[in-house]
Amino acid sequence: MKGKKIKNRITTMFGIEYPIIQAGMIWCSGWELASAVSNAGALGLIGSGSMYPDILKTHIRKCKQATSKPFGVNLPLMYPQIDDHIEIILEEKIPVVFTSAGNPAKWTPVFKAAGIRVVHVVSSVKFAQKSEACGVDAVVAEGFEAGGHNGREETSTICLVPAVADSVDIPVIAAGGIASGKAMLAAFALGAEAVQVGSRFVASEESSAHINFKKKILETNEGQTKLSLKQLAPVRLIKNKFYQMISEAEAKGASPEELTMLLGKGRAKNGMFLGNLEEGELEIGQVSGQIDEILPAAKIIENLWQSFKTAHDQLSKKLF
Amino acid sequence: MKGKKIKNRITTMFGIEYPIIQAGMIWCSGWELASAVSNAGALGLIGSGSMYPDILKTHIRKCKQATSKPFGVNLPLMYPQIDDHIEIILEEKIPVVFTSAGNPAKWTPVFKAAGIRVVHVVSSVKFAQKSEACGVDAVVAEGFEAGGHNGREETSTICLVPAVADSVDIPVIAAGGIASGKAMLAAFALGAEAVQVGSRFVASEESSAHINFKKKILETNEGQTKLSLKQLAPVRLIKNKFYQMISEAEAKGASPEELTMLLGKGRAKNGMFLGNLEEGELEIGQVSGQIDEILPAAKIIENLWQSFKTAHDQLSKKLF
Repeated sequence: MKGKKIKNRITTMFGIEYPIIQAGMIWCSGWELASAVSNAGALGLIGSGSMYPDILKTHIRKCKQATSKPFGVNLPLMYPQIDDHIEIILEEKIPVVFTSAGNPAKWTPVFKAAGIRVVHVVSSVKFAQKSEACGVDAVVAEGFEAGGHNGREETSTICLVPAVADSVDIPVIAAGGIASGKAMLAAFALGAEAVQVGSRFVASEESSAHINFKKKILETNEGQTKLSLKQLAPVRLIKNKFYQMISEAEAKGASPEELTMLLGKGRAKNGMFLGNLEEGELEIGQVSGQIDEILPAAKIIENLWQSFKTAHDQLSKKLF
Repeated sequence: MKGKKIKNRITTMFGIEYPIIQAGMIWCSGWELASAVSNAGALGLIGSGSMYPDILKTHIRKCKQATSKPFGVNLPLMYPQIDDHIEIILEEKIPVVFTSAGNPAKWTPVFKAAGIRVVHVVSSVKFAQKSEACGVDAVVAEGFEAGGHNGREETSTICLVPAVADSVDIPVIAAGGIASGKAMLAAFALGAEAVQVGSRFVASEESSAHINFKKKILETNEGQTKLSLKQLAPVRLIKNKFYQMISEAEAKGASPEELTMLLGKGRAKNGMFLGNLEEGELEIGQVSGQIDEILPAAKIIENLWQSFKTAHDQLSKKLF
């Protein structure tokens, strides 16, 4: 990849060439994806939320063998065996942890004391400010359009990113709706210093998503995902049979308990990892409508970077 | 206002200096706002959706007296006395009509035959393509974060604008989440040739919104609006007592009929025009969280334009 690079607080902090971070996505982001992304000059993350502790350890070790570049771990803070995960992250001297889905107050000081860079994923200005007060090094401002679990405020990327950037001094990484150079440029225009990309990497060769799910993403058009299960924890899903079932129950006024029953166990694994496209839960962002090819992670990064530069050139020509 | 202007398909088509269009908002955009916007070099629109035909005629005539610049009318296509409205628009030789909330197939040819420029507001790629096939001159791609009535797809601006821009040849105007130069720059990065701004103009001196509503917008923070009444016609509202009532009914599985009963008549007028902040319907976008001052429309346009240029300079310095 040619052309000048961006040097800013995020690329410097993580020691990466491109201001692109791969999201840690359950069932989709193991060592193969994380190492491929890091080897290509962006920041790869192992998504620990769908891993037992021994599996996480294996993925970290394999990732270290596959890349000499920095990579991180995404840690949902409500993970049931969180103490075990944190012990492994500390033992393995992971340099960067992205925390999500929980309160960063308890664990941020622990990571910081170990010299680990901590980034927390937020969906609102309020949580961004709380995270900064907890001592995190950066925040991901993740908009409503993002796949998977999502904030109750439903604030979209174009509204969230500038509001967060204005409310904190630490750098802001934009997430939600970003799978092209145009959207990446928009994120920078809004005040972000890097982007976190999820959906686009699910449909990569190295992602551990089932091939059925990857192909389903290519077929998914604009308007075919929806933020669902809002009474439990809001999650953006492809509108499949499972989604319809939940949606009908919600329209009839189903209680959280009834929805929990319907959800059952293992839906996400069933859908995304085992490829059951109708009974499973398929977590993906709105931007899936713009994804039409399964590509190697390195190619995804190259395309993003080149189209980002092209978008910038075109914008400058269009204006003034 | 100094500095070079943008010459593109939208500014040329409408004969305006700035690629900024004021949204036609019920109860908020009469002749005072539309003429102030047009006089300042952007495109003002009279929002006809809350006007009886004779009121619309009065507003058009007063607007003509107040400005020699072009202005348009926003016409919701499901308006009950639409034939009367259209007759007035033709008689008064309005040069630009923005249609919304309905199918543009029937009326676009009528307007075009009269030499009127037609722009249709869409919330999806599918409707953008249909609108182009109907012969409209441009589309507004309006994202989920926008205030008032909104699409069922819930596609956000950052996902919708590039998808629409890639799917049609006519120019695209971005709407939803735009009240600052940063967001305006993001819209251009995404492929828009102009922006349509609603919420920011509701809190203008010339808007016909009740002063209580204008002040309420200043107090509204990020996360305090919600897309509501999805079973009827989705509409983004401030979370007030009326919203809570609807929201509780929906959680209990209320039918569309029950919701229609709860909605009753005149809620929007009551809230936005008469200033009843608890019982009324307060339509506003997510970007209300970034609005903290009531300003003259001309000042809003100047601020948008200056901050747009500043955002562009900053972006270019940040990159490459």
